[in-house]
Amino acid sequence: MMVAASAFLTPASCPRLRPLPAAHILFYCINNRNPKSGNRSFKAPSPSPSATLHPSSPLTRLPIHHQHSLNPSSHSSIWRLFCNQTLSADAEVGEKFEIEAGEGVRKFKKRLRIVDVRGGPDEGLDSVGQSITIRGWVRTCRVQSIVTFIEVNDGSCLSNIQCVVNSSSEGYNEVETGSVGIGASVLIEGTLVRSEGSKQKVELKVARLAVIGKSDPSAYPIQKKRASREFLRTVAHFRPRTNTFGAITRVRNALAYATHKFFQENGFVWISTPIITASDCEGAGEQFCVTTLIPSKIEGDSSPVDKVPATKNETIDWSQDFFGKPAFLTVSGQLNAETYASALSDVYTFGPTFRAENSNTSRHLAEFWMIEPELAFADLNDDMACATTYLQYVVKYVLENCKEDMDFFDTWIEKGIVNRLRDIVEKDFIQLTYTDAVELLLKAERKFEFPVKWGTDLQSEHERYITENAFGGRPVIIRDYPKDIKAFYMRLNDDGKTVAAMDVLVPRVGELIGGSQREERLEYLERRLEELNLPKESYWWYLDIRRFGSVPHAGFGLGFERLVQFATGMENIRDVIPFPRTPGSAEF
Amino acid sequence: MMVAASAFLTPASCPRLRPLPAAHILFYCINNRNPKSGNRSFKAPSPSPSATLHPSSPLTRLPIHHQHSLNPSSHSSIWRLFCNQTLSADAEVGEKFEIEAGEGVRKFKKRLRIVDVRGGPDEGLDSVGQSITIRGWVRTCRVQSIVTFIEVNDGSCLSNIQCVVNSSSEGYNEVETGSVGIGASVLIEGTLVRSEGSKQKVELKVARLAVIGKSDPSAYPIQKKRASREFLRTVAHFRPRTNTFGAITRVRNALAYATHKFFQENGFVWISTPIITASDCEGAGEQFCVTTLIPSKIEGDSSPVDKVPATKNETIDWSQDFFGKPAFLTVSGQLNAETYASALSDVYTFGPTFRAENSNTSRHLAEFWMIEPELAFADLNDDMACATTYLQYVVKYVLENCKEDMDFFDTWIEKGIVNRLRDIVEKDFIQLTYTDAVELLLKAERKFEFPVKWGTDLQSEHERYITENAFGGRPVIIRDYPKDIKAFYMRLNDDGKTVAAMDVLVPRVGELIGGSQREERLEYLERRLEELNLPKESYWWYLDIRRFGSVPHAGFGLGFERLVQFATGMENIRDVIPFPRTPGSAEF
Repeated sequence: MMVAASAFLTPASCPRLRPLPAAHILFYCINNRNPKSGNRSFKAPSPSPSATLHPSSPLTRLPIHHQHSLNPSSHSSIWRLFCNQTLSADAEVGEKFEIEAGEGVRKFKKRLRIVDVRGGPDEGLDSVGQSITIRGWVRTCRVQSIVTFIEVNDGSCLSNIQCVVNSSSEGYNEVETGSVGIGASVLIEGTLVRSEGSKQKVELKVARLAVIGKSDPSAYPIQKKRASREFLRTVAHFRPRTNTFGAITRVRNALAYATHKFFQENGFVWISTPIITASDCEGAGEQFCVTTLIPSKIEGDSSPVDKVPATKNETIDWSQDFFGKPAFLTVSGQLNAETYASALSDVYTFGPTFRAENSNTSRHLAEFWMIEPELAFADLNDDMACATTYLQYVVKYVLENCKEDMDFFDTWIEKGIVNRLRDIVEKDFIQLTYTDAVELLLKAERKFEFPVKWGTDLQSEHERYITENAFGGRPVIIRDYPKDIKAFYMRLNDDGKTVAAMDVLVPRVGELIGGSQREERLEYLERRLEELNLPKESYWWYLDIRRFGSVPHAGFGLGFERLVQFATGMENIRDVIPFPRTPGSAEF
Repeated sequence: MMVAASAFLTPASCPRLRPLPAAHILFYCINNRNPKSGNRSFKAPSPSPSATLHPSSPLTRLPIHHQHSLNPSSHSSIWRLFCNQTLSADAEVGEKFEIEAGEGVRKFKKRLRIVDVRGGPDEGLDSVGQSITIRGWVRTCRVQSIVTFIEVNDGSCLSNIQCVVNSSSEGYNEVETGSVGIGASVLIEGTLVRSEGSKQKVELKVARLAVIGKSDPSAYPIQKKRASREFLRTVAHFRPRTNTFGAITRVRNALAYATHKFFQENGFVWISTPIITASDCEGAGEQFCVTTLIPSKIEGDSSPVDKVPATKNETIDWSQDFFGKPAFLTVSGQLNAETYASALSDVYTFGPTFRAENSNTSRHLAEFWMIEPELAFADLNDDMACATTYLQYVVKYVLENCKEDMDFFDTWIEKGIVNRLRDIVEKDFIQLTYTDAVELLLKAERKFEFPVKWGTDLQSEHERYITENAFGGRPVIIRDYPKDIKAFYMRLNDDGKTVAAMDVLVPRVGELIGGSQREERLEYLERRLEELNLPKESYWWYLDIRRFGSVPHAGFGLGFERLVQFATGMENIRDVIPFPRTPGSAEF
């Protein structure tokens, strides 16, 4: 145990801190050997709170100033405090190397985070009595006659840690001079004690306090009073310091990681499909042009028009552009993903896609992230099953791993969201055909704004009626849409009128996922391209996949920001991506 | 056990397959209830081979034609065959629902893949005697007098499965008519038996064979004889069907997932920094312009120059562009990531970045993926420790999870690569200062092409000498570079001449990672911007982070394709990304 304790108390296992002149020297390199194999075994530091705050650690019996220096300008790093589990689990041996000048690199150490203290089942009670060091940003500072309460947040969770300072705390003068204002960054050492307050079970009795970075409270852009979402978009560099945007960021992260976990655990391979494409065959919306023909930013907004290279016919001379022809930002990675599914079987993309549409709505972004799985040897039924299971998996993951953030959304953003999400996980999804859906809507007693007619696309009001009313809050998949309202690559059904397409509708949001079985029959696909006057030459490689070893395959697309909206209840899509891009706006 | 067997044998748990007219109907929905909680519990299907091929399954005692239809045009899906563990683990109950027309969605099923058969420790021997169905693409077909050997690959692993067909196999006529050629997709049912061959322990004794998609062997672009890498780039839609590119794709996927795992396990939050940026402060290289001013692709390559909107002064009228000002593709997400690290503490990006440089080399791409972690409350030592541990983690992950692919690279691409990677995992990294490195190079007995002098950047030959010769194959981190050869945001050291920058050098590749502690002191950063004549206004939000609660922070950047090159030994960076973008080339 003493090995662990000493590792905990010394700033690093680095034998010296200043560079030495170049020379052959002997030094001891702390090496971590696995006594069984003789090989060094790496273990990632455990993220569990017990790894960072071991109740039986001798640490609590040592005076706090033994831990490390508090002087921020000290050469040695004081910013990380940890318990490196590897050091305590394995025996350590010193090993001699004769090498050139140079020294080892310190071990990577997990910083003690507020979530490690407050996030456990006991909300910190199991660690009462321990001396800890916390770093973060001041949320509030309430000076009272005898004690001062400082709420500190480090972004690791929604909860702050309440720090109780009194005149005997070292650094108390920082409080007196008003340096500990909202937004300031601080380093605080103290002892974890039971809290008298109702909001938390533990608080930090402060032994020392140091201000790392000041913050003028009168100038700080984000004051305690609630700022509007519109205003917060103008300070997108500070908004993650608020409760709402911190929670969105963590839930967004959890959804992204759960996406990777789901597909990896099910044998899918992640593919990075191209962002820039000169391919002429996407056609799913207005595209941004990517070019080096326009004078670059050095010349800024005074770029002369006549610098754009022209041919004799006064058309743009694309041969002088970077790619030798017009290039665009991708609107979808699907067609490329299909080629990899035709080799690796099951693949998925997760990357940015773009629309140059002038849509200034709360549901549209010019730049957004998409998840596009593609399954080989699969039909529309497999596709629907995959979409259903995926959605249930990621929602369940967020409910289990972001409980505090989800409770916050339930209280402050959308009442009942946790139950709505639980329904997604627990209720069976319903499927029905487009034709049945139209019949159902025609029989509905509801008056719709847009009339329902076979052959026209369903509007949001229809989709919400189906999932919220007709099926009482169940997610519904509508399948087999008329071919004329769907994309060219969708597989023609035997009726000759509909295609094997599907949309997943969820209560409150409407369509969340769109997918289809792809037309794998060369002759059908070529005929469809002809019907739509699309140039076959542009699709040469896409058609090739049908020429050589074609297989039935299917996939779907999911706008990641729509998923984050769905999981957080946030109304405006600009608030669920760190730096939104919309018409007229690409700041930061 | 019979529950599992019946789930295994029926095509789906879907009670009916054709749409019914809209009406109130009663139907049974197979529901999977957890008997303890009463709630439905979702379990991801286990990826272990035992889940898909249970040795004690009654399956082997049943005639194969009970399993499912082999007719590819059948309406019900025949493409997935699986063992859904959830079904066998939990009791099943039927539950009545009275709802609108519609039916349940089938359960998602993991397809049996070749890696499930051959990837286990026994290489399939534990499953001998089982009846299985395999789908994939024909690699070779050797017709002999009595039997025909068909090698089938499905991309799940490097290994093919050898299928032995004779005249009593159903579908043998497909072999006789020559339909089972290279590149064709097939569905094969049979019994797993011990193989007499030396290349595999098991093979498939074929009961039935069906060709899903034909492939004309004389026209198929990828023949058995080795095609050059240059040629394969022209058929990027087929190259993942080769051994080399299949292996690269799987290793690339493993490196990506290991990256997410490492950062998530260490409490980092994934941030999507913007791809399109109108921010004027990146300055790390030539940028692509993103615009809607140039007539879109509909007009193709005959876009008239005079359609570009101009002001009275004949300069480009940016006010008419999508974002109202010039916008570009990002070269780095770092500055944006710093704002999130100043709220969430530890974050990372993993997304595409771009360079419009006319570099036609084997090390440059116009579009590549970057990983950029940013650590708050961290200095350069923490940064180096994180970079080291990260690199060791992902390399170890690949060695453990892509063994077969790595052996392939060791045999065919770079002899000794596995040992080189093992060194990365096992050897301690060395750090030394730039100043010491220069001194070491000046004393070296080696004659360098580029002279070494304090103040100039190290060349590849210097970097490789240091890591390969001076430190005998150890990874080396060089730190504290002269400020004049590094970026404006790097933290000035106390000597006033160097900055807290670091480069990680690895044998054979040279620089793999570059990072730094960031200048968190407002006055130092402003002075540096002035020295470099950079406009402070453009950096308003970046400077803001130093105005309000600034903290010491550090991070690094890693070009993901360089990492894939490093891990696979592939010489040309165009071969480690699915669809490379380079000057003059944006095909597919």
